[in-house]
Amino acid sequence: MKKTHARLADGREIIYFDESDGAVRDLSDRRELTPFRFRPTVRYDVLADEWVGVADFRQDRTHLPPADQCPLCPSTASRYSEIPAHSYDVVVFENRFPSFATVATTAGPAEHTPAEPLLQLQAGAGHSEVVCFTAEHDSSFSALAPDRVRTVIEAWADRTITLSSLPHVEQIFCFENRGEEIGVTLSHPHGQIYAYPFLTPRTRRMLDSARAYRERTERNLFADVLATEQRSGERIVARGEKWTAFVPFAARWPLEVHLYPHSQAPDLPALSDAERAELSWLYLDVLRRMEAVFDDTLPYIAAWHQAPVRIDRDLVRLHLQLFSIRRGPGRLKYLAGSESAMGAFVNDITPEAAARMLREAR
Amino acid sequence: MKKTHARLADGREIIYFDESDGAVRDLSDRRELTPFRFRPTVRYDVLADEWVGVADFRQDRTHLPPADQCPLCPSTASRYSEIPAHSYDVVVFENRFPSFATVATTAGPAEHTPAEPLLQLQAGAGHSEVVCFTAEHDSSFSALAPDRVRTVIEAWADRTITLSSLPHVEQIFCFENRGEEIGVTLSHPHGQIYAYPFLTPRTRRMLDSARAYRERTERNLFADVLATEQRSGERIVARGEKWTAFVPFAARWPLEVHLYPHSQAPDLPALSDAERAELSWLYLDVLRRMEAVFDDTLPYIAAWHQAPVRIDRDLVRLHLQLFSIRRGPGRLKYLAGSESAMGAFVNDITPEAAARMLREAR
Repeated sequence: MKKTHARLADGREIIYFDESDGAVRDLSDRRELTPFRFRPTVRYDVLADEWVGVADFRQDRTHLPPADQCPLCPSTASRYSEIPAHSYDVVVFENRFPSFATVATTAGPAEHTPAEPLLQLQAGAGHSEVVCFTAEHDSSFSALAPDRVRTVIEAWADRTITLSSLPHVEQIFCFENRGEEIGVTLSHPHGQIYAYPFLTPRTRRMLDSARAYRERTERNLFADVLATEQRSGERIVARGEKWTAFVPFAARWPLEVHLYPHSQAPDLPALSDAERAELSWLYLDVLRRMEAVFDDTLPYIAAWHQAPVRIDRDLVRLHLQLFSIRRGPGRLKYLAGSESAMGAFVNDITPEAAARMLREAR
Repeated sequence: MKKTHARLADGREIIYFDESDGAVRDLSDRRELTPFRFRPTVRYDVLADEWVGVADFRQDRTHLPPADQCPLCPSTASRYSEIPAHSYDVVVFENRFPSFATVATTAGPAEHTPAEPLLQLQAGAGHSEVVCFTAEHDSSFSALAPDRVRTVIEAWADRTITLSSLPHVEQIFCFENRGEEIGVTLSHPHGQIYAYPFLTPRTRRMLDSARAYRERTERNLFADVLATEQRSGERIVARGEKWTAFVPFAARWPLEVHLYPHSQAPDLPALSDAERAELSWLYLDVLRRMEAVFDDTLPYIAAWHQAPVRIDRDLVRLHLQLFSIRRGPGRLKYLAGSESAMGAFVNDITPEAAARMLREAR
C-alpha cells in the first residue's frame, strides 16, 4: 500500500491510500477556495453532563447534489471535485464542513470562559475527515472487493494513529452513514472519521460499566459479553477464527450486529494482520446479510467503538456496531419521544428473531 | 371537569375527561376483540447500563390508516373505533400495542432469571396509554383552544397520580410525537403516556448531575439553570408570571425550547391552578412560534420531564422539552453515527440564533 499526502486549495489535508505501490498522485487542486477557517464549538450540557457540538456553518453543506456534481467523485479535465486526482482507490481528506476542527488560531481548548459557571463553551477542537471507499459513484461498501475493504481498514487504522496524537483529542470514531433515510447528504460511498475533544457519552457509559464490572469480578466485561454470546449461540450471526458477529442481547435497533475480535485489541491499529484479513470478508458477509433481510434498500450506520486515546485503554475493547433503522419493507424505526427525549429504547424485533433472519439471509 | 371510566371490549381501560360536567358516557365498545394479553419485556444492556424494551407484537401496529379508518376518531353508527362514544373532549385509553404493560399473569417484575448473569430479562411491567386531544381528526395540538389545553393538562396530571401508584412503576412520561417524519403512525392529534418500570437514561443523568451539584453547592441545579437563563436573556423565547421558555444553552436540536415553572414542582400534579392556567396559553404560544419559524410542516416531540415516582423527588424539577428535527424548509436533522452510536450531538443552529428566530416568529 502506498500513502501520498497533499493539500487542497484551501489548505485542507488529503491522503491517498493506493493499493498499487506505483501510484503517482501529483495533481494539485485547481479550484479557488477561500481558506479553511470554520470554528466549531462545544457546549457543556449541565443537566445531561455531556458536551454538545455546535457548528452552524454546517447548515450550508452540500445537500444531495446530482450525480454529475458529486464532490467525492474524482476530478475530470472539465470538473474539479474535492479529489484532484482522476482516479483513486481510497482517499481521506478533511471535511469542508467539519463538526470538529483544530484551526491554527485556536491555541488551546478553552476559547471562552464565561462568567456564568453553568454556561461552558470551548473550541470544538479535533478533526473531521471524509473517507471515500471507491471512485465508483454508484457502488456501496457491501459491493467492495475484500481487498478494498482491507485498504479501508488500513486507512482507518492509519488515521486513528495520526489523529490520536493530536492535542485535545480524546477519542477517534470511524463510521459510515448510509442512506437518505438517515440523512446522508452525499450518496457516493464514503464514511467519516471524527476526532472528538471529549469522551462521547456512549464511551463514558461503557467505561463506567467495564470499570464497575472489573472491580466486582476482576474480569473484562467485553470479554465476558463475547464469551456469553459464544456459549449461548442464539444470537450469533457469523463466526470466524478471529472474530464473532452477534446480535446484542439488549439490541436497541431492529437490525443490529456487533463484531468483536477474539483478542483484546483496544483499537483498529492494534489488530494483527490475520485479524485485518478475516475482518475484510466477515464485515462484508455480515453487511450483505443485513442488506438481504428485507426486500428494500437498507439505510445503516457502521460505527467503530475504540478505546479512548489517553485513558482506560484496557477497559474498552474494539468492536464494530452495525445497525439499521429498517424494521420491515417500507417501514422504518424512528426515534420518537421515548428514545429521543428519555433515552429509553423499545425494539420491535426480538434479538433472537433478528439473528435467525440474519443467519438465514443471503 | 367530569371524569368517566369505562372498559373496551378487550378489557383495556378508557377514561373520558369532559369539559362539561353534564357529559354522559354510557356507550359500550361493540367490537369483538381478543383479550388484551401482550407481554412486553425489558432487557438489561450491560455495556450501556440501561434497560431496553422489547415488544415484538408492536410490529403489527396500525400504520398510517386512511382518515376514514382512523382508530382515534369517535365511533359512528356504522364504524367502531377505539373510542365507543360519538364525540369526546379528551380521552385516555390503554395502548392496544403497549411498549410497557402489567398483565394479570405477571405477578412481579422478574419473569425470567437466566443462568447467565449478563443476560437479564424481565417483564416490561408498566403502562402505555394514548391521549386524544380532540375529536377533530385534522386538527393539531397547536390549534387547540387554551381551555382544551387545560383539559389535557388536567388529564396528564390525573394519570400521573394514578400511574405513580402502580407496582413496579418508577417514572411517568407524558409526551406527544407529531409528524410522519418522526414516525408517527396515526395523524389524529394525540399524545401518549408511558409508565416505565425503570428510571430512563436521561432522568438518571439528570439525577446524577443534580445530586453532584447539590453536594458541591447546596443548591438545586434546575433552579440555577433557570436563574442563569433569566439573567442572560439571550436564549429566552417567552416569559410568563409562572413560567419561562428558553432555548437551552447546549441545545441538541435545531429547534429546542424548554419550559420551566418558576416554582419547585417535581411533576404535573404539583402544579398550582395559576400555573396550569398560564401553561395553557404559554405552551400554545411557544409551539405556534416553533411552527412559524420554517415555512414547512413541523415534526416535533413534546416531552414532559417529571421527577421519579419513588426517589429523589426534590432533585429533578418538572419541565417541558419541546424539540424538532426540522433544521430548515425541506431539511431535517437526522441522528446519524455520532448521535445514534456515540450519543454525541452536533447542532447546526446556535441556540442564540434559534431563540432569536423564535422570538421573531408569529
